[in-house]
Order: sequence, then structure tokens, then C-alpha cells
Amino acid sequence: MGSLDSKLGPVDLSHHINVKSKSRHPSPLKDIIRYMRQDGMISLAGGLPHPSLFPLERARFDCLPPMSEPSVESSLATLDLGRNSNSGNLDLTQFLQYGSGAGNQKLIDLARELTERMHAPPCEHEYLLHPGNTNAWSKVVGLLCEDDDFVIVDDYTYPSAQALWIPLGIKATPVSADEEGMSAKGLRKMLENWDEGITRQKRPRLLYLVPVGSNPTGVTISAQRRRELYAVCVEFDIIIVEDDPYYCLQYPKFTPNADPTFQAVSSEDFVSSLVPSFLSMDTQGRVIRLESFSKTLFPGLRLGYFVANSVFTERLLRVTEVETQDPAGLSQAFTLALFDNWGIDGYLKWLQSLQFQYKTRRDWLISAFNNCFEVVPAKKSPVPDTQGHVACVRETASQRLLPVFSFVEPEAGMFVWSKFYFNGVPRFTELQGQSIEDPEQAFAAELWEAMAAKLVLLTPGSYYHAWQGPDKTSTTSRGADPQSAYFRFSFASPSKC
Amino acid sequence: MGSLDSKLGPVDLSHHINVKSKSRHPSPLKDIIRYMRQDGMISLAGGLPHPSLFPLERARFDCLPPMSEPSVESSLATLDLGRNSNSGNLDLTQFLQYGSGAGNQKLIDLARELTERMHAPPCEHEYLLHPGNTNAWSKVVGLLCEDDDFVIVDDYTYPSAQALWIPLGIKATPVSADEEGMSAKGLRKMLENWDEGITRQKRPRLLYLVPVGSNPTGVTISAQRRRELYAVCVEFDIIIVEDDPYYCLQYPKFTPNADPTFQAVSSEDFVSSLVPSFLSMDTQGRVIRLESFSKTLFPGLRLGYFVANSVFTERLLRVTEVETQDPAGLSQAFTLALFDNWGIDGYLKWLQSLQFQYKTRRDWLISAFNNCFEVVPAKKSPVPDTQGHVACVRETASQRLLPVFSFVEPEAGMFVWSKFYFNGVPRFTELQGQSIEDPEQAFAAELWEAMAAKLVLLTPGSYYHAWQGPDKTSTTSRGADPQSAYFRFSFASPSKC
Repeated sequence: MGSLDSKLGPVDLSHHINVKSKSRHPSPLKDIIRYMRQDGMISLAGGLPHPSLFPLERARFDCLPPMSEPSVESSLATLDLGRNSNSGNLDLTQFLQYGSGAGNQKLIDLARELTERMHAPPCEHEYLLHPGNTNAWSKVVGLLCEDDDFVIVDDYTYPSAQALWIPLGIKATPVSADEEGMSAKGLRKMLENWDEGITRQKRPRLLYLVPVGSNPTGVTISAQRRRELYAVCVEFDIIIVEDDPYYCLQYPKFTPNADPTFQAVSSEDFVSSLVPSFLSMDTQGRVIRLESFSKTLFPGLRLGYFVANSVFTERLLRVTEVETQDPAGLSQAFTLALFDNWGIDGYLKWLQSLQFQYKTRRDWLISAFNNCFEVVPAKKSPVPDTQGHVACVRETASQRLLPVFSFVEPEAGMFVWSKFYFNGVPRFTELQGQSIEDPEQAFAAELWEAMAAKLVLLTPGSYYHAWQGPDKTSTTSRGADPQSAYFRFSFASPSKC
Repeated sequence: MGSLDSKLGPVDLSHHINVKSKSRHPSPLKDIIRYMRQDGMISLAGGLPHPSLFPLERARFDCLPPMSEPSVESSLATLDLGRNSNSGNLDLTQFLQYGSGAGNQKLIDLARELTERMHAPPCEHEYLLHPGNTNAWSKVVGLLCEDDDFVIVDDYTYPSAQALWIPLGIKATPVSADEEGMSAKGLRKMLENWDEGITRQKRPRLLYLVPVGSNPTGVTISAQRRRELYAVCVEFDIIIVEDDPYYCLQYPKFTPNADPTFQAVSSEDFVSSLVPSFLSMDTQGRVIRLESFSKTLFPGLRLGYFVANSVFTERLLRVTEVETQDPAGLSQAFTLALFDNWGIDGYLKWLQSLQFQYKTRRDWLISAFNNCFEVVPAKKSPVPDTQGHVACVRETASQRLLPVFSFVEPEAGMFVWSKFYFNGVPRFTELQGQSIEDPEQAFAAELWEAMAAKLVLLTPGSYYHAWQGPDKTSTTSRGADPQSAYFRFSFASPSKC
């Protein structure tokens, strides 16, 4: 547990910064800003529009209290931000003007305080605001990756994260996961066996993970597995990008007929109930944590922050100056005013409430599986070598159990990842008999269309295949299991019937 | 004047899209979104958080009316955005949730309507929101430039625009300007003489301009010069990026003791008083116009829009999906609500009022020059081959006029660009006598420090030198005039003493 004055210094990781990022010039305006702050200075230097000419005078936001039931409006609190007002600390004007690129200092301080409460990173880290994890990941790729590099990801990974780097010629080198997350042994084996002479490609140096409630697999990496993965990353000098929007949405195991009432615990108990983050075990400064308020407040904020080694945040600030500037001012103002009203403890209570709401939705979906299928533990199912549970139907004549799909009951996030079994399905057998390159994907596409026609929409698993190049997109060329395909269920949006 | 059904079709400019941008995959989620809209669909597909779990219930913004004097609060209008409210059209919820990447459709429609009123582009163009012109330019470079390309810019250009592409190995090929803006003859000569065999570099295909009140030079390109530049760009197949945040801040010529009262004219007269944009003469779809609300509403909005050929906006949307997503929701909500309240005519009135305020500030600064120096027309000055006016002091003994700096009275924007003369200044002569590589820059740096010590801050002109590579940064190697250096005055921020 690191207090602010007992942090480890990071190891030197500057060699990870790519050529383009290294060559960014510092902004010459920094020198001037220092002078601008001087008393009595007549500044004819800045190109800032005059704040008296901004048409917005006051912003008020009506907000739920941390522990409210949704949509109970009686207890709304109003966050009130005026211009040059007596509110003083939260004068709206500063959020309407250009910023320095790093974001509002109070919000950065808040990010640090919140992170210390939740992760207590053992090593020195710096903080930098960003406009959402999509942009944050884009900046990290711009910081660390050269064209044609490899990035280490799960077998099934977040497609927008890949779509960003596919045009750079970057490819995924996927590592398989089990119920505890990415295999540390698999990671080590891949790295040990990487022969730069044969592959003509540098050994990968970047590991991208959604470590809690992974999108799409729903898997949360266990504490023990994290320690093993971190040790491999130290050994092979890998930077870990922890893209962790679902961190606070961790749930107990599914139990049928769980208590439907919400019981809050203390902030300390809540925080210690969560699996430790990679950041919390980062003794070397090799974790870049991408924090986002999209899932905990709302996505339209486009607001989050980096927690990273200062050698990285300094370069990330340089690219922020020329690619995005500060996150939107109203988003910063709202978030800071909300934390002023709620306090960090209020926010942690809000997270508990949110956790309970999504846990309830997880339970609805798993219960629906149990109501509609015969759900049996995988080991007792017709597909005993799979993980988790298998939803089956019973053949009327033989009373034999037929597997429809297997799934792992997620203990975090918004998703249930499911493997559908096609063996013996007449239409699939028919497609196999035709000279089609990928009968699995052809049947999966037909199945998806058929479900959509019945007004149930899933996300095809093919969206999440790790991109290994255009020659590795079919079921066979990817080395994926035959006679099956994946679909993702989201339990975040639908209402209970 | 193009009405929506009589537009010219754009010429095929798809060959300008760079290799990486061409290889972007379309988002697979688009197929799903189409199905999601179907009545009765149970969507287990989207990973969207549930809107009932967003803590913001209502946002209210108190705004100035279009024609108000600054800071008169009596006439404030309140923009009121609720959730699932009867306001219907402007339900806040849509701005809190993830968007499609393109931005809110009503805001896009508004951007189109405003652009038709102000620019009436003769060719078909599409519209796409972006989070500010800094990000917009970053996306355009990502769309069109290959590493090591050349970009055509003014001799003195916006440093953040350059800082973005310097790490890509891109260099500026600057073209000189006179009082009417970039020289069309200079542009044509540079392009005609470009020998790809000798330079081993492709002829430049991208022209970056801040065509109204240029940052830093304050120059506005005349209508006639624009037509000549556009013709050269057609002939040499150049894409024009019109980064035009100061478009509405165009002023009449400076006259001492100008009428200090504001007289509004009709929206039509206001619009026709403005110099025609490149977009308004773009018959081929080769203008990418970057619009921003940063100078007309406030910078913290981080909101603007592209107006461009659909072959470009389609690719810009692809990169938006993976690099930024939609602009912040509160920014979109505020802007749309403001336009609902003001109307486009109200916004055009606001722009007139803003124009008057900045014109008044321009007049303050030019009047201060007149009060502090003997300002004479350049032709009658000791430096007759320069442009505009020269601020001089009179040598006590000889009564000879000595030039301090020359400047062109700007008719737009926020800046006065000034050339300071060092000839005969004892300290400069001393520096020339030393073996210093660049005595002009050395003296300019000392002068800047000396002014800052006297509590007057200017921006050094060196920030704005077109980047032609590390071997072309000194006064001599750039081929710049000896015994002089530039400084930029901004009249946007300071108050009148």
C-alpha cells in the first residue's frame, strides 16, 4: 500500500516510446504560460477569446444522490456553477476557456485521490485527463507501437481497440484464457518461443487487457493470475495496458433466488471486495491504466484519465496538445461539481448501487437461461471439456441431452459469452457438405439472422476474433474449435419482461 | 448559390486518401444498429449502459440573448433539458448515451442549414461533427498525408497544426503572402517547378490555410486571390483545408475615432459582408472546411464540424469511431438547445455583436500604437519596401525617423503581426559581432525577455516559422530578411486601461 511519500520510483521504460512520439516537440507556449501568471502582466500573447464574450452564464445540473433508487426525483441535488460567482472554487469560466491540455488541476487531484483509495499504486504514477478510453487507447498505440508491431490480446478482444491499429499493419498475437483470465503460462510460452530471426518481427512489447468483465468474454482475471502475468511482463519487458471500464461492476457468484434487496457496505469493505488491479501491483511503472467515467456516470461525458509512468504521461500530454486538447469543459465541470457534492465516499456508494443494479440484470439473464433450457454443469454435459455451464435441450424421442450453448456465469461487467454447438444440426451438416470455406461462420450468420427475425438480437462472436491478418479469419485458419461459434449476450440494456 | 437539389456532384478525389485510411475496416456494429431500431426487438447485442443508471436528471443553462451587452444578466434565457420529458425533441438522455460517431442528427442538420445560409456551397458536401479544429486537423492529416509528405502552408503558420505532423517526417513547403494572402503565382511557381526526380518527394497535394485573420499574420485572403488559388489547386489537384475559426470576425478598415456604437444589420447583409469562403467556390469537392464553435461560443465546448466531400467524410467517420467517438454529449446538448432558443438568425446576430466587440479591441490596440509611436504608411517610412504601416520613434538629435516595427492593420481575427527592425540597435550590432549562428533570433529572445520584464508579453514570431526541417530553422537558412524578427500581438484578451 503506497502512501504518497513512500512510493517506489519507476524503472526506466523510455525505450518503449516509439520513434514518432519521441520526436514530438514540446509546446513552445509553455514558456509563455509561466509568464502569463505573473501579477500585473499585460498579456498580448495568448490567442484566447475573451471570457466576457461567452454566452453561457450559469449551468445547473440536477443529480441523483448516491444511494437513490433510479428515477426517484424527490431527492435530487442541484449542482450550480456560475461565472465569477461566490462559489469561487468552481467558477464556470475556467471550464469554458481553453485549457492546458492536461485538464483541470482539481479534477486531476481528485483522480489521484480516488486512485489512491481504490488501488494504492506502490509506484509513482502521474495523471492526465482524456476524452474517453477510445481516445486514450488511440493515444497509447500512438505512443508505443511502431507500424507492423504485434500486440498481445485475448483470443477474443474488443473490436474497436483492434480497428484502431489494423490500418497500421499491427497484428494481434492472441493468448488463450480460462475462467481465471489470460494464461500466464501461455503468455510466457508465446514470448519464449518468439524467434525474431524467424518471424522477422520484434517480440511483442505491449499487452492489452480488459481485465474485469472482459468485453466480450465476461472473464475477470483472478488476483493470483494477475501476479503471474505481471511477473511474466517484468521478465519480458512488456507494458500492460489496463483498459478497465467495468472494474466497479464486480458481482458475487450467481445463485438462483438471490436476495433482491440491496445492502450497502462501508467504502473500505467495498473497495477491498474488488479484485486488485494491475495498477495496485505495479512496482515498476509498466502499467498504463485507462480510467473512464462512461460506465459509472454516463458515456456522453467523454471523460476519463490515464494513470501511468510520468515518462509516458509527459509524451501523452504532448500528443494531447496537438490531437485533442482538454476534454470538454462542461464534462469536466459537471464531474467536479458532482464529486464536490457527493464526495469520494458518495461516489463509492453510487458504485455499490450501480454494481447491485447490473448484478440484478446479470441474474435475470442467467435465470432466463435456467428457465428456458436444461442448464447443467459442463462436466456433466454432452460437451464435458468446456468451461462453466451448458444450456441443453432434451431430444424428445431418446431423452438425450443436446448442447445448445455453453457459457461461464460472469462475475463482472455486462456480458455473457456463449459458445453455440452445431454438431448434428441438419442445416449445418448441409453447409458442411457444400464447398464453403467456413461452414461454421456461414451457419452462425444464418443463425444470427434467424434469431433477429424472431426479434432477439445477439452480437456475433466473429466481431471479437483477434486480428491475425487477412489470411487468418476463417474458423480453420484461426485454429478455432470446429462445429461451433460464439455469440455475446449483453444484459446491460434489456428490461425484465 | 447552391440549393440542396441543384448541387454539382464532386469529382473523384478518392486517390487522395492515404494507404492507412483506405485500409480501415467499416465498423461491423453498423449492421446491428439497423436491426436494433426494429419494433419489439429484444436487444442483447449492444454494450450500452442502462440510461436509468445515469445520475444526471436535468441540465439547465442560463444564456445571454443574441444582442445583449456582455454581463447584463437581466435578460438571460434558460435552456432546460430534462430526461424523458415533454420537451420531447431535446430529451437529455440521447446526449448522455453513446452516439454513432457522426454526432446528433439534429445538430448535423443545423450545421448544414447554417452552412447553406453562410456559404451556399455549389457542390455536394457532407457534414460530420468533431471535437474541435485541433482534432479535426489531426484527422485530416491522418486521412490524406503519407509520412514524409510536404504540406503547403503560409510562410508563418499555426504552430499546433505543424506540431501534429512534424513527428511524421512531414515538412512544410511555404508560400509567401502579401496583404491579400498567399500568392497564387507563388503557389503555381512552386508546384510547376517541383521536380519529383530531383526532390525524390511527391509534389505536395495538401494546402493548409487559416484564410481569415490568419494566425499569426492576421491576413484575410481576398475574394479574387481565393479564386486564383482555387484555380491553381484544380490545375495541380490540391486539396484545400480551410481552417476558419475567425471567419465571422471580419472588420472594416481601422479608422481613428470610429463610431463606438454598435449598429446591427440584417442577417443577409451581415452574411454578404463577409469575404466568400473557399467552400463557397468549391465546384469540385476539394475543400475540407473545418468549422468550430470555439471562437463564436466558447473553446471548452470542444465542438465543431467538417464540411467535406462524402468520399472524405466516410473515412473521417471510420477514424472517429476508433479515435474519439462523438463530441461530448453536454456540448452537443447545450449547442442544440442554444440554437433552438436563438434560431439561426439569433446566432448570426450574436456573431455581429461578437464581431463588433473584437473590432473594438482591434481599434484599441491600433490606437495605442498611434498614441505611443509615430505611425506612418510604410511607403513614407524608413523601410519603404514593407507593407502596411511602420511604428517609428524620432531620434532626438537628428530628428530622423527610426523604424521600430511594421504591421498591417488586420481586418479580421485576433492578431497583429509585427516585424521588428534591429538595424543599428547597439546590442544587436554587438551580437552580430560575436560568432553566433543566428543573431536575429538571439536578439529577438533578449527583446522578448526585456518586454516581459516590463510586464508586456508578446508571442515570439519564431513559433510560427513554417517547419522545413531541422536544417532550416535559422534566419539565414530560412532565407528570411536579416536584421529583423517577428512578434505577434493578440488583442483578444487584454482589457483597455
